[in-house]
Amino acid sequence: MRAGPSQEDIRRHNLGALLRHVHLGGPISRAELTSRMGLNRSTIMALTSDLTAAGLVREELPRETGRAGRPSLVVRPESSRVYVFAFDVSPDRLAVARVGLGGLILDRREVARERDALALGELAGVLAGFARQMRRRTRDDTVCVGAAAAVPGGVRKGDGVVTFGPNLMVEKAVPFGEELGRRLGLGLPVSVGNDANLAALAEHSRGVGAAVKDLVYLHGDVGIGGGIITGGHLLGGHDGYGGEVGHIVVNPGGRACGCGSHGCLEAEVGERALLEAAGRFRSGQHGRDAVRAVVEAADRGDIVAQEALKRVGDWLGLGIANLVNIFNPEMVIFGGMLREVYLGSAAQVRSRLTLHAMAPQRERLRLRTSSLADDATLVGAAELAFAHVLADPLEVLARAGT
Amino acid sequence: MRAGPSQEDIRRHNLGALLRHVHLGGPISRAELTSRMGLNRSTIMALTSDLTAAGLVREELPRETGRAGRPSLVVRPESSRVYVFAFDVSPDRLAVARVGLGGLILDRREVARERDALALGELAGVLAGFARQMRRRTRDDTVCVGAAAAVPGGVRKGDGVVTFGPNLMVEKAVPFGEELGRRLGLGLPVSVGNDANLAALAEHSRGVGAAVKDLVYLHGDVGIGGGIITGGHLLGGHDGYGGEVGHIVVNPGGRACGCGSHGCLEAEVGERALLEAAGRFRSGQHGRDAVRAVVEAADRGDIVAQEALKRVGDWLGLGIANLVNIFNPEMVIFGGMLREVYLGSAAQVRSRLTLHAMAPQRERLRLRTSSLADDATLVGAAELAFAHVLADPLEVLARAGT
Repeated sequence: MRAGPSQEDIRRHNLGALLRHVHLGGPISRAELTSRMGLNRSTIMALTSDLTAAGLVREELPRETGRAGRPSLVVRPESSRVYVFAFDVSPDRLAVARVGLGGLILDRREVARERDALALGELAGVLAGFARQMRRRTRDDTVCVGAAAAVPGGVRKGDGVVTFGPNLMVEKAVPFGEELGRRLGLGLPVSVGNDANLAALAEHSRGVGAAVKDLVYLHGDVGIGGGIITGGHLLGGHDGYGGEVGHIVVNPGGRACGCGSHGCLEAEVGERALLEAAGRFRSGQHGRDAVRAVVEAADRGDIVAQEALKRVGDWLGLGIANLVNIFNPEMVIFGGMLREVYLGSAAQVRSRLTLHAMAPQRERLRLRTSSLADDATLVGAAELAFAHVLADPLEVLARAGT
Repeated sequence: MRAGPSQEDIRRHNLGALLRHVHLGGPISRAELTSRMGLNRSTIMALTSDLTAAGLVREELPRETGRAGRPSLVVRPESSRVYVFAFDVSPDRLAVARVGLGGLILDRREVARERDALALGELAGVLAGFARQMRRRTRDDTVCVGAAAAVPGGVRKGDGVVTFGPNLMVEKAVPFGEELGRRLGLGLPVSVGNDANLAALAEHSRGVGAAVKDLVYLHGDVGIGGGIITGGHLLGGHDGYGGEVGHIVVNPGGRACGCGSHGCLEAEVGERALLEAAGRFRSGQHGRDAVRAVVEAADRGDIVAQEALKRVGDWLGLGIANLVNIFNPEMVIFGGMLREVYLGSAAQVRSRLTLHAMAPQRERLRLRTSSLADDATLVGAAELAFAHVLADPLEVLARAGT
């Protein structure tokens, strides 16, 4: 119930809105911006001038227009000049990318991670090292405007401290962003987000869920996480722990879960549940390849693998049905290892949905797999890093010293 | 990604924001409005003048100030002049209220309803009749600015058509708002909302959940419904059916549910589940009194009643734990007959929460009973009716012909 915005607020909003069009949609003509934003031509010209002067976009003549008359200038993001660092800590790998405005991955580095080999605090040093190497390879006129990391754990709202993460060796609250920012040494704050939440944001802005305002994204790795977009906004919750769908109980009295409860979605559908049901849970065999092997075996007619997928698909379907009743989403997206699991058990999932989800909620529902695949969390981290640039483009550039 | 607002948009926003302060918070001084809204004194004066001229508020000297100097004028809602009609269709009663700006119930009429005696379409005539009687008793200078109804069913987004309602005898989509509007004959559209959603809004604006931005409200009647506020907004979902928490499966293979599934929260925790478990499910004995009788019997030491509450409390607690993991709410509110059930099984609910909800999510969680009690749905309907007045105060008054 605050008052309406000031002139300065409106200019900031409009600059951010224009930059967001260019960042998410790619090169776009001034004429198109005029029509999409509902502003007049002179306002669009003034806004693009400001962003051009700040070095965030450039304007150029379109390649060919096919129309008579003076062509409308095309506004492009300065992708190679303005960038962020995106970090992704997953149970099995570490990834760092330098991502240009517009979402272009300019440089990346990935390394396999031994599960439980390093605690989260120590990982900061490794990640920062990769980023410094990348930075040394950049031209002098480039500018880093932000950094963010995705972690498979709970991230507290407000201070971004990682407070839990059974697959991260987090035993006490870790100020991971602060630690990473210090080691990065760029004088920039590092934002931190839950991996599934960031992957949901990524699919919502650049993936299969673009333009979908109500979606449920399920992310499978060792555990199961979720990210929920409702009315176009990420569900955060009071403390930032919203979307922990891996720990809804689908099978009371079922398999023990790492969280201390029994029958959680994660316990019935996670990597270990599938591998055990398929008789393939042996030390050293885990991760995406092991899951894929079960699905492939089932495809080849392996009955044990088929039964394992059927069992896991039943619980996955029940979990999805619950979420569909609660959220009435337009789309459910399966990401991480759940892409493979869903593809191998789609019939089972759909039959559970028919059984347990209410008809009006499932009538127009679409089930999809992640289109960004294993890059979803990394892309989400980049979007988180760009968020404050889009909120206030000029302030960020001023702070970056250009 | 639209452009920022125009001057006219800002004025409309500010008028609505000021009126919302007065409507929800009651009489308030101009000085306080200046500070709360972050606007200067002359802008507040101009806004209150507009609203006064439109007959929505009036300004008067405060009773006593206790301070030296000229006292700040107090802005009051024109509660007795500007009103809405609120309708509530519940399984056991029909209620109609004339509610003044500011939330004051000026007149009300309630009548018991035989379950399944009348279909939803026919109820419109009864409700409109009550409203017309009330209207005949009003003074000539009063003006009705809106009307809305709460129904225990699914209400489609966009057109407000009631598409399902097992306790409403809805077999096909019913354009209930249209029907009620026609019979009311005031030339006003009648908004329609799901009862639990509207009760959640009511608790969020005027009840125990005021100032709470993330809350889960559970409403028990014959069935179980829910309304969820996340980040200050009601969860609607793609088609408007969000929050149907009564049909999440808590006990796979459990009791049959009216929706066709088994083990839904509603099937395990609803009125019938409790009465059957307590050996009290007989024809003619139902509703709030029958539920209260079980809780009272348990209090007096009746072991069957105690066991029934224990059983129901277990499933209720499991359902709540799931919702807490998903939403990380600040507060869970028990409304309708779940007020009684929760009060009679709080220990059970809390112990299930400890078992199944993740620690960070439950650390700061508060469990509360509805403070608006049986008026929650009616108050919610009134707030829905006032919503468009607050969105654009002047347009509404212009249309009402004043």
